[in-house]
Order: sequence, then structure tokens, then C-alpha cells
Amino acid sequence: MSKQNIGIIGLAVMGKNLALNIADHGYTVSVFNRSGEKTEELLAECGTKNLKGYFTIEEFVQSLELPRKIILMVKAGNAVDDTIRQLKPHLVQGDIIIDGGNSYFAQTIGRSKELEADGFYYFGVGISGGEEGARTGPAIMPGGDEKVYELIKPILTDISAKVDGELCCHYIGRDGAGHFIKMVHNGIEYADMQLICEAYLILKSVLNMSAPDLHEVFKEWNQGELNSYLIGITSDIFAKKDIDSNNYLVDMILDVAGQKGTGKWTSQVALDLGVSIPTITGAVFERYLSSDKDIRVAASQLYGNGVKPEQKSTDFVESVRKALYASKICAYAQGFSLMLEASRHYGWTLDLSSIAKIFRGGCIIRAQFLNKIAEAYQDEPELANLLMNSYFKDAIEQYGQAWRDVVSTAIITGISVPGFSSAIAYFDSFRTQTLPMNLLQAQRDYFGSHTYQRIDKEGTYHTQW
Amino acid sequence: MSKQNIGIIGLAVMGKNLALNIADHGYTVSVFNRSGEKTEELLAECGTKNLKGYFTIEEFVQSLELPRKIILMVKAGNAVDDTIRQLKPHLVQGDIIIDGGNSYFAQTIGRSKELEADGFYYFGVGISGGEEGARTGPAIMPGGDEKVYELIKPILTDISAKVDGELCCHYIGRDGAGHFIKMVHNGIEYADMQLICEAYLILKSVLNMSAPDLHEVFKEWNQGELNSYLIGITSDIFAKKDIDSNNYLVDMILDVAGQKGTGKWTSQVALDLGVSIPTITGAVFERYLSSDKDIRVAASQLYGNGVKPEQKSTDFVESVRKALYASKICAYAQGFSLMLEASRHYGWTLDLSSIAKIFRGGCIIRAQFLNKIAEAYQDEPELANLLMNSYFKDAIEQYGQAWRDVVSTAIITGISVPGFSSAIAYFDSFRTQTLPMNLLQAQRDYFGSHTYQRIDKEGTYHTQW
Repeated sequence: MSKQNIGIIGLAVMGKNLALNIADHGYTVSVFNRSGEKTEELLAECGTKNLKGYFTIEEFVQSLELPRKIILMVKAGNAVDDTIRQLKPHLVQGDIIIDGGNSYFAQTIGRSKELEADGFYYFGVGISGGEEGARTGPAIMPGGDEKVYELIKPILTDISAKVDGELCCHYIGRDGAGHFIKMVHNGIEYADMQLICEAYLILKSVLNMSAPDLHEVFKEWNQGELNSYLIGITSDIFAKKDIDSNNYLVDMILDVAGQKGTGKWTSQVALDLGVSIPTITGAVFERYLSSDKDIRVAASQLYGNGVKPEQKSTDFVESVRKALYASKICAYAQGFSLMLEASRHYGWTLDLSSIAKIFRGGCIIRAQFLNKIAEAYQDEPELANLLMNSYFKDAIEQYGQAWRDVVSTAIITGISVPGFSSAIAYFDSFRTQTLPMNLLQAQRDYFGSHTYQRIDKEGTYHTQW
Repeated sequence: MSKQNIGIIGLAVMGKNLALNIADHGYTVSVFNRSGEKTEELLAECGTKNLKGYFTIEEFVQSLELPRKIILMVKAGNAVDDTIRQLKPHLVQGDIIIDGGNSYFAQTIGRSKELEADGFYYFGVGISGGEEGARTGPAIMPGGDEKVYELIKPILTDISAKVDGELCCHYIGRDGAGHFIKMVHNGIEYADMQLICEAYLILKSVLNMSAPDLHEVFKEWNQGELNSYLIGITSDIFAKKDIDSNNYLVDMILDVAGQKGTGKWTSQVALDLGVSIPTITGAVFERYLSSDKDIRVAASQLYGNGVKPEQKSTDFVESVRKALYASKICAYAQGFSLMLEASRHYGWTLDLSSIAKIFRGGCIIRAQFLNKIAEAYQDEPELANLLMNSYFKDAIEQYGQAWRDVVSTAIITGISVPGFSSAIAYFDSFRTQTLPMNLLQAQRDYFGSHTYQRIDKEGTYHTQW
């Protein structure tokens, strides 16, 4: 009996859909799940001869051709370690374990070292696109040994999303690089969603727009330079009616945001690496703040809900669009700066242009806009910050006035815009020749003898203040 | 020969000054340092019979009365573990090790567990006040076994700062609680300094104020409700001339901020505990951003330095003062919210009123203002957020208009105000009954089936969008 091409462990929705996607592309796939029921369910419902189910880990492993390629689609954390422990006794040197979950990149670095010391290969592969992406073509970010990557590349590229004939799967770098990039993708996604929510809040508060109005606005925006998956689904969302109440569904949803931790990780790593990402971290904090609904209600009774905004013409909609676009540029500039620093710090030599191209398809932040980022890094691979690229410079300069008008209107009227305002502050600090940190250094030297540098000569100095 | 009351290991500036402070209060102190030179230097210069130096760890330990009290004033991290390892063979059950450095609170929790399992006592004690505070009276935040605290309380309270006859030393809680509070103190300090820097930048940019003008402004502010150590030293700094250039010294200092990691830790812990502290974390990010001076110079050439601010009257100075005060309230509200959540999470039952009182003396953020915080938590120990207290509510409401005017002026003219604007956004989100997170939850449900709650009924829901 001939052996199967690849194996998948873990048949929750992502693992199941990935298995079907691979089978569709003509590969033979073995599947295994901790509880056999899910395996039986999948076999019963899919009906392709490319898929075979196994009910012991040993038979599963034995079914695979050498070197074995085994994708883990289990929950990040202990489940990954447990599965590796169960697998190892049945593997032979040169077999390849592929972690396709949302593992924390530092754990992936640790597991890679351990398994490679034992003679196996380990890949941390970021897979983005949710259920649908996994089934029909996700964005794929593989990290691991570059030479061994050639052995899994055909399968990964076959199943990945494609945009303009280009693959949304590209080798990222050693060990944790793939999971790192997936994590930063999610961090950017937090910021992107927060900014869209602020645009919504402003339009609703200032222009009294209803869900159908907003549906039209976002539909139109999706035709232009904001064109993206998130703007598209936002437009869809505003069109959806709630059968129970006959209101628009969005108006019946509680304003308490959930989160699963990848935005938090992105922020914590940026803090460790010394990279400023206030719009991404601000989006995480805003989700936290939203969760105290009871306190917010009490506080709104204490303080009221801000002043009534002055009447604005519908030109204001275009100003909000510009503010959203300019803020979005800053959020992406932050995320890509983090990748640049991580590339140096971990020695990954990341290709930021390819990474921007991967993000164009399959994943949640897919957008037209990523073509511009890909071009910026293609023109200048060592670009220090996206804001130094001429396309983004022109956009920021053209939209600057509208951006500042919208944010100051929001601030004057008490509309909360943490994302928009942190993006402006990021931009303004970034392009300010002389920040007030001379005073801060003087303070630190005054109370803690931390010393300072001077503008007119080299060296560090301390003053008896 | 009679034994000494207490021992200190580590004679860098903080350890040395603490030893002298304790000796001044009539206690006999043994000192030890890894290199004997520092010990000899200290003995040569101090000339008090209360201080005795030792050159082996064994003799040092043997010189102390039982139960031994040994303060470690060594660098946070490995040096603490190394010193404990060297000490242990010479100790007896019941001896007390006191870590007076800036150790990360989670490490203090770990070390407490280990040492207490071995029959010793371990205290993590936050000591704030820099060199001068250590010598003349620091703020002290002791964490450890509450009953054993009685044994070290007389010494700690004798050497601590006093304000209005009250001690700036108060038992905080078990294991890592003292170091945690010291860490959050530093996080608040980051925000406080950032906000003062922004006030300076606005006054300089909008009103063209020179260093002597600013000296007068901060001197006046220090007479009112902003009265604090940091405002006082800021006033001093603006008066200081540079001998070399004959300019004011502050104008000769490079605007690149240093940092030592406690603001970063505060931010990372807040992210783990789910508490929103954007003004504190924004201050950390701003220090990072300041360090890329070369890129900022290049960006300022690319983008220019913002628009010229419109002429403002000197009333604007008062508006900036109000904006600073309102922003400061929000920064402290964030820091104290973090303590509240940590108290729940780690089971420390922190007394936030006492903690505010400790901060009134010795430490860097000492301020009049802390009396108001102490009163707020005295009136209502379970206060959910400082912004729910009537004193702070009145301040925010009275100053709200000026606060919003100043921030919108800064944003319109391109003056970077990450701290002021994040404080406003924090306040506005906090007091907003309906945030736009309903849309965010709809998006998450759309692309990831993450489900949402409704405003009209219990339960979690998923929609086929």
C-alpha cells in the first residue's frame, strides 16, 4: 500500500478545513484527532479518497511517506508540547513537524532548538484567514530551516491564497520567524479594526448616521484606496437586519470587545525590543477598557456624554475617510518597524516586501494598500520607516489637514479617538526634530544622576543641579 | 563583643546612603561589598562608630544579631540570586533577607517561595527617592510576611520619609507586593515626566517661551495644586546656566531619553492583567521613539516641523496648566487601577490609601495631589477608578474645556502630545456609555465565529453574516 503525502493532527475547524484544502489539491492526507469522533465526522462528511483517518498515533505516523510531514493544528501552549511528546517515539531522523497554530514565537524558537538537536525538523508556520481562508486559500508564513523548506513548499504554496498570480506563501526565516510575523499581523489587525470603529463612532456621533447610511459609506470607501477585507465586511455588517428585533443587528450587539492574546503579545514584544507601537497597543487597551461596561455606564451618568457636535456638511465624510487612511498608514508603519527591529534582533533577515505581499491574500488585513507597502520595501529594503517612503509621505501630506480637523473635532466634542490621536502623535513625534526629551534627561540627571548627552559635543555629562 | 543590628550588602550609591541613614538613627550596621575597596572607602569617609565593614561574607553574617536582618542593595537580576546563594550556607532558620533593589516583582514572588520553604524569611522592599532619598528619608514599600514585618518595622520606619507626621513606610502585602508597587510608582513617574515635557513643548512652541520664562511658569505652578517634586525640579532646571556655552543648560541637552526598564515592566504587566494604561505605556513608547534621533532629523526635513501656531494670549499658560492637571489625574487613575487589579489577582488586599500616603514623601512622584488620592481611597476603599471620586470629577469638569482646547490646538499645529491626547481618550472611553465595540464584535464574529453578546438578552450569539 502506498504511503500518504502528509499528515494533520487536530481536526477542529482550522485543521479540518486545511486537510480538505490539501486533499483538494491532489495530495493524500492522513488525519488524526485526540478524540476519534471528529475523525469519523470528517471522513463521513468529506467523501474524498485522498483523506484517510487513523485512530492511533502510531498507525497515523506509519501511514506517512518519508521524510514525514506532520502538521499540528492543536491549541497553542501545552497541547503542542504534549502532541510532540506523543509523536517523537514514532518518528525517524529527518521527519518534519509543522506547527500551524498560533504558538508564541519564543516557544517556537525553543521547540525548534530542542527538536533539531534530536535530528528532526521543526517549522513554525503562521496561517491566517480564519475558517474560510484555511478551506479556500490562507496566507501562509513558514519559519524554519530554509533548505528543508523546499520539501514542504509545494504543498504550502499549492494551498495558499494567490493575488495577481503571486503566492501568499513565502519563506520567512529561521525558527520563530513565521509565528512572529503572524503575531504582528494580528497586532496590526487590532489597530486596523480599532481605527474603523473610531471612524464609525465619529460618523454616527457627528452626522447621526444610521446603519444603512454607514453601509453605503463603507461600500463606497471599499471602492477606493481603503479597499480591503475589513472595510468590505464592515459594509456587509451594517446591512444586516436582526430578525428578532427588526433593528439593524449591529445596533443590538453589546459594545464589549473580546480578544485572544496576540495583540497583547505583539505589544509586550515591542516593549522588549524598544519599538514604539502606540496605535497597536492602544487598540489592545481599548478592548480592555470596553470590558468594564458597568463602570462605563456609571461614569457616563456621572460625566454625561460630551457636548453636542456642531453641524458638519457631508464633506466631513470624506475628511473621516482621509483621517482613517492616514491613521492606518501610521499603524502599519508601527507594525513594520517592529518586524524590522525583530529581523535585526533575531537575525532573521526578513524580506518585508514579500511579507507585505503575503498579507495581500487570505488573511484578515488583506488590502490593496499592501501593494504600496510591498513596493516601498522593494524600492528600499532597508527603509527605516514606512513614513519615509514617498507614496506614504504624499498621502500623509495631502490628508494631513483633514486628519487633524477630524481628530480635533472629536477631541473638542468628547468622542473617544485613542487610535486616531495616537497615530497623529506617533507621526508628529516621528517627524519632530527636537522633542522635549532634553527636559526629561535633565530631570533624570537631577534626581538619579542618570547623566545626559549634549547637542554640541560627544560624551555623557552629569550636573550638580 | 556585641552583635550588630542589621547588615547591608552592596555599597553602590543607594546601599551606601541607606547604610549611613540607618547608622544615623542609632542602629549598628555591618556592611559588605563584593569588592573590598568600596567598603574601605565608605569606612574612611563616614567616621561613625555605628558602621563596621567586613571583607568575607562569613564574618559579615557572624557579626549580626539573631534573627539576622540583611538588606541586599545589589543590581536586580542574577546578582540577587548569586548573593542569596553565597549567604544561605551561613544563615540559620528565621533569618531575614531584605531585597531593597528594583527587582522584578515576579522574581520576588519566586524567591520568597524558595527561601521560605528553606525556613528563612524574604522581603521585597521597594525603596524610592534616589540617592538623596536613601540618605535622608526614602519612601519604603515592604512586601513579605506580615508578622515578621514587625521585626524590621522599627528600622524601616525610622529611616523613612515623614509627611505631616505620617510615615512614608507602610506594610504593603505578601511576597512581591512591595516591589510591584515600586514598579507601578515608576510607571506613573514615566507618565508624569512625559506630561510635564509636553506642557513644556506646547509653551515653547505656541508662546515662544525661553528657559527663564519657563522657570517662572513652573515656579508659579509649584505654588498651586500641581505642587510636587517633579514640578519643583523642572523649575530649577530651567534656571540653570551652562558655563561652557553661556546658554541655558536645558537647551544644550540632547533630546534622546534613556530608561531602565521599570516603565516597560509596568506596561507588560498591565497587558497581562487586562488593565488599560495608555498614558503610562505611551510615555515608554515616546522614550523609544526619541532614541532614533537620526531618523527624526531626516523625517523633519522630509515633512517640515508643523504649521505656525496662531497667536495666543498669556491666558493660554493657565489652560496648559489645567490640561496638565487633568491629564495627570488620568495617568494616576491608570496606575491606581493597575494596583487595584493586581491586588485582586495576587490576593494582596492592597490598601490604596496608605500607598498614596507613602508616595507623598521621599519618592520621585511626591506631590500635594497624593493627599487627594489618599482621601479618595479612604472614603471608598473599593473605588473602581479615581475618576469616579467627586474631587477628581470636579477637577476634570472644571478643566475639561481648557484641556480639550490645548490638545486640539496642539494637534492642529502639529505639536506632538501623545500623553495629553491619550489621557483625553482614556477619559472619553471611560465615560462613554456606548463604545463602537459592537462593530468590532460583529467583525470578529464575521471572520472568526468568535460570537458576540446582545444588549437585549443574555447569552452568546453567532450570525451567518
